[in-house]
Amino acid sequence: MNPPTHMNPVDGRYVQMETVDWVDFPAALSAGGIRWKLLNVAPEMGAWTAIFDCPEGSSFAPHVHIGPGEYFLTKGRMNVRGCADEGGATAAAPGYGYEPCRALHTRTCFLEDSEFYMTFLGPLNFVDDAGRTIALATRKDAPDAWEAATGV
Amino acid sequence: MNPPTHMNPVDGRYVQMETVDWVDFPAALSAGGIRWKLLNVAPEMGAWTAIFDCPEGSSFAPHVHIGPGEYFLTKGRMNVRGCADEGGATAAAPGYGYEPCRALHTRTCFLEDSEFYMTFLGPLNFVDDAGRTIALATRKDAPDAWEAATGV
Amino acid sequence: MNPPTHMNPVDGRYVQMETVDWVDFPAALSAGGIRWKLLNVAPEMGAWTAIFDCPEGSSFAPHVHIGPGEYFLTKGRMNVRGCADEGGATAAAPGYGYEPCRALHTRTCFLEDSEFYMTFLGPLNFVDDAGRTIALATRKDAPDAWEAATGV
Amino acid sequence: MNPPTHMNPVDGRYVQMETVDWVDFPAALSAGGIRWKLLNVAPEMGAWTAIFDCPEGSSFAPHVHIGPGEYFLTKGRMNVRGCADEGGATAAAPGYGYEPCRALHTRTCFLEDSEFYMTFLGPLNFVDDAGRTIALATRKDAPDAWEAATGV
Repeated sequence: MNPPTHMNPVDGRYVQMETVDWVDFPAALSAGGIRWKLLNVAPEMGAWTAIFDCPEGSSFAPHVHIGPGEYFLTKGRMNVRGCADEGGATAAAPGYGYEPCRALHTRTCFLEDSEFYMTFLGPLNFVDDAGRTIALATRKDAPDAWEAATGV
Repeated sequence: MNPPTHMNPVDGRYVQMETVDWVDFPAALSAGGIRWKLLNVAPEMGAWTAIFDCPEGSSFAPHVHIGPGEYFLTKGRMNVRGCADEGGATAAAPGYGYEPCRALHTRTCFLEDSEFYMTFLGPLNFVDDAGRTIALATRKDAPDAWEAATGV
Repeated sequence: MNPPTHMNPVDGRYVQMETVDWVDFPAALSAGGIRWKLLNVAPEMGAWTAIFDCPEGSSFAPHVHIGPGEYFLTKGRMNVRGCADEGGATAAAPGYGYEPCRALHTRTCFLEDSEFYMTFLGPLNFVDDAGRTIALATRKDAPDAWEAATGV
Repeated sequence: MNPPTHMNPVDGRYVQMETVDWVDFPAALSAGGIRWKLLNVAPEMGAWTAIFDCPEGSSFAPHVHIGPGEYFLTKGRMNVRGCADEGGATAAAPGYGYEPCRALHTRTCFLEDSEFYMTFLGPLNFVDDAGRTIALATRKDAPDAWEAATGV
C-alpha cells in the first residue's frame, strides 16, 4: 500500500439458519453434547458469531473472554459459574448478557435444554486451573473447527 | 492520565428481557408501530444492542450503518430494501444477517409480525433521499430515546 | 455464506511514509493549509489512520468523533478547543491524546507548525453551530478525498 | 442493568509524553534493553497504546497479534521477521505498518536504535516454537507490567 490503495467495501452476508446443520462443538472444550453453527467470521476485527445448542447438563470448559461478548439466550437456563443449580441460574430465557473483556467463566453449565446466540470480539482463551492457556479459540480456530466437523 | 492510571475493568451485565417493557421507537425514524428494548450500551466503542418488535407493515426509515451490524431475526420476515413483497424477503426467521460498515438500507420493511435482536458498532445514520443526515443515532441517542420513552 | 464460508485472513501492509506526497486536506473541513497522508483504511471496522501536517494558524472545522480516536503529536502545539492561545495549549509535542467516542471539538487549531499521527474508529462528523451534520468523513470518504487530491 | 442504565460517556485523556519515564519492558518477553511507556488502556474493547524505545540489537520474543495492531516507526529500523539484516529491514523510519489479526512475528529485531508508537486491539500472544502460549499480554497485563516496573 504505497501509495494507499482503495480498499473495497466488505460484503454483507445472510445465513438461513435452519438450513445449516448443527455440528459437534470440540469435545476438548465442552462436555455433554454441545453443538453449534458458526454464522460469521470478521477477520479484520477478529470477531465471530455463532449459535449454540446445549442439552441439559452440558457445559463449556473454563475460559476467559479476551474481548467483550454478548449473548441472547433464547431457550433454557444457563449458569456461567458452574453446574450446581443452587436456586440461582445466571440466565433464563429470554435473557441478554454482556460479558466484558477478560471475564473469567470457571465453567458454564446448562441446567436444562438451552440455546443461545453470541457475538464475540476476540478469541476465547480456554484455561486450566492455574490459568494457563489450553486453547485460544480465535476467529481462525472457529472456522477451522467448523470445517473439521462439517468437512466443508 | 499522567502517569497512566490503572483503568478499572468493565462490569458485566444481565437483562431479564421479559421484565423490560417494550417502548415505541422514535416515530421520526420508523412507521407502523415499531417498539424496542435497549439492552446494552458500550460507550467506549460506541456500540449498542437492542431487540425490536415490528408489526406487519412497519418499517424503518432509510439509513446507513456507520459500522457493522449483526441481526438475529427470531420471528417473521424482513425486507431490507423496501416494502414490496415480490416473492423475495431478505430474511425469514430464523435468519442471521451481517450488515457491513456503510451498508445503505433504503427502507427496511416487515412483511409479517417480526422480531429481531441486533448488535451495532457505531451509529445509524438516517438519511433523506439525497443522502443528507436527518438523524445520527449514536450510542448516546439510543439511551436518550429510550429514556424519553420510558421516563427512566 | 450458507454454509459459512472460510474467510481469508486480512493482509498486512506497510507504508514508507516519506515516499508518499502530502496532499491538501479538503478546504471545506479545514483552513490554513492543512495537508495529510492517508496511511490505512480498515473497511470492516470502519477505521482509518492518517498523518497531518498543520501550519501555524491552521485549523480543522468543528467536528464530533463518532468513535474513539488516538493521536500522537510529534511536532508543534495544538488546541482542540479553539485558536486563542491563552497560555494553555491542549497538547504540545511529544503528546498523546485519547478522544473518546462522541468527543466534540469546537475547532482544533495549531498554534505553531505541527504534525500529528492519528487512528480513528469510525467517522468524523463535521457539524455546524447547531450540531447538524455538514459532512460525515467515513472510512470511504477518507480514501475518496485522498484519491480526489492525488488522482490515484 | 434492568431496566438499562444510562452509561456515562468515557473521559478523554492526555499524556505529556516526555514527563513519563521509560521503564523496562518485561525481560521474559524481550531482550536487549527494550523500554516502554504505556500511554492508554481501553478496558471495554481490550485495546492499549504504548511507545517503545528499542536499542540496536534488541528484540521482542515471538508473538501473535490477537487483534490488529498499527505502528508508527519514528526512529530507526525494524525487522519483524528476525535479526539478520540481509539488506532488507521490514520498516525504516518514518514507516507505518498494519499488522493484521493473527499476524505471527517470529521475532522482531531492531537493526539500529529505534522508537515506535503502537496501538493494539486485543492482546499479544507470546508463543514458544510449537505455538503454545507463554504469556498473553492483555489490556490488563499491560498496566500490571507497567505498575510492577514503575511502582505507581
